[in-house]
Amino acid sequence: MVNLKHDERLDYLLGEERLRIIQSPTVFSFSLDAVLLAKFTYVPIQKGNIIDLCTGNGVIPFLLSTRSKASITGVEIQERLYDMANRSNEYNELQKQISFILGDLKEMPAMLGTGKYDVVTCNPPYFPTPQKEERNKNEHYAIARHEILCNLEDVIKASSALVKQGGKVALVHRPGRLLDIITLMREYRLEPKRIQLVYPKEGKEANTLLVEGIKDGRPDLKILPPLFVYNEKNEYTKELNKILYG
Amino acid sequence: MVNLKHDERLDYLLGEERLRIIQSPTVFSFSLDAVLLAKFTYVPIQKGNIIDLCTGNGVIPFLLSTRSKASITGVEIQERLYDMANRSNEYNELQKQISFILGDLKEMPAMLGTGKYDVVTCNPPYFPTPQKEERNKNEHYAIARHEILCNLEDVIKASSALVKQGGKVALVHRPGRLLDIITLMREYRLEPKRIQLVYPKEGKEANTLLVEGIKDGRPDLKILPPLFVYNEKNEYTKELNKILYG
Repeated sequence: MVNLKHDERLDYLLGEERLRIIQSPTVFSFSLDAVLLAKFTYVPIQKGNIIDLCTGNGVIPFLLSTRSKASITGVEIQERLYDMANRSNEYNELQKQISFILGDLKEMPAMLGTGKYDVVTCNPPYFPTPQKEERNKNEHYAIARHEILCNLEDVIKASSALVKQGGKVALVHRPGRLLDIITLMREYRLEPKRIQLVYPKEGKEANTLLVEGIKDGRPDLKILPPLFVYNEKNEYTKELNKILYG
Repeated sequence: MVNLKHDERLDYLLGEERLRIIQSPTVFSFSLDAVLLAKFTYVPIQKGNIIDLCTGNGVIPFLLSTRSKASITGVEIQERLYDMANRSNEYNELQKQISFILGDLKEMPAMLGTGKYDVVTCNPPYFPTPQKEERNKNEHYAIARHEILCNLEDVIKASSALVKQGGKVALVHRPGRLLDIITLMREYRLEPKRIQLVYPKEGKEANTLLVEGIKDGRPDLKILPPLFVYNEKNEYTKELNKILYG
């Protein structure tokens, strides 16, 4: 049983018949980028601690739970989304592995302790905060998409504080922010080690960037094979179908 | 008529029946990377000034002369390679458009003036200088490949000094140096605007990086479609054949 509010739906989590997730067209639906990040990031298989910042409706923790037995924490600042994540967690009966915190990621290192996590993931807001009149009218989407309550430096600073030495921080963002991301990562002792670029289709510029850094890692960057989302018929490519549906 | 020394050959320049270039297996032969850079870089079509640092046997100036009427200068520190470039230039009868300078790129801003070039290109040595005993025994190749006489910062510093405001600097390097390259470019006021990654084949990590920055440009990075060198039959891909042979 699950209590669905307003226009919420109980969707299947891609390719995961055991798992469902509460979404709402007017509040929050997870994006392809979150799924790509959940597949891109390294996870410890048997044990450990993972934290997902800007977790939204919890899509990344739920997806990671299929790959790892580690304890997973999701942090979300919007109460409405936190509530959706919690109800999905109950429905999925994953409360022993996954817990959600309602709070500001900037306060997490003080609250949870520094250097405790093996992996930090984050699909943060991508866009600089626009003038009030230009923002998405829907406050839930505006907060998820624009740097209203946290900016890129907040995310990287908090991630670096939360991750243990030698632990990994994986982010998804826009390629236009590549320079800022890697400059900030190095500033906060996260050495970028793996980058993957996602292209909407062949012949187009990249529109998504996946990056993983290691706390106090030594410089040795690898750029993984590119990922194409659509083929020439505008269908998902084979590789993307495999990522989405296994 | 051309005077060929020792084991030199007078090779055709890829796809350019009018142009020939002197090469030698024991001294210097141009690489695919130089060709990719010559095709990747922006050039002014009708007029202007272009300078190619670490020009080797002059392959980049010769290739650029097919795309631009600008005046092109090639700078090379090895007298033997400079001599090859000059003899090719005579053979090609391009002395009115192309000139070569024997010298150290670090001294070029003082010698040639600052802020005078529309475009700077450079295919620099890729590898940190190894211990003397680990170096390539062939001194010509060692200097071309290792940061013995100039390092990445020397290249970017000189490029930034030579290029005019709003002018472009295009480099080719290894993806593992991406972070150093863009950090140094920003430090020297060259804002990275276009990056292209070259992959040996599908499913492999990138092994070559092309990057173009604009002096005092505003941040707006684009990551171009990836370039694959070989197909699954280990033949050049169509796109690479087009780059090489038009």
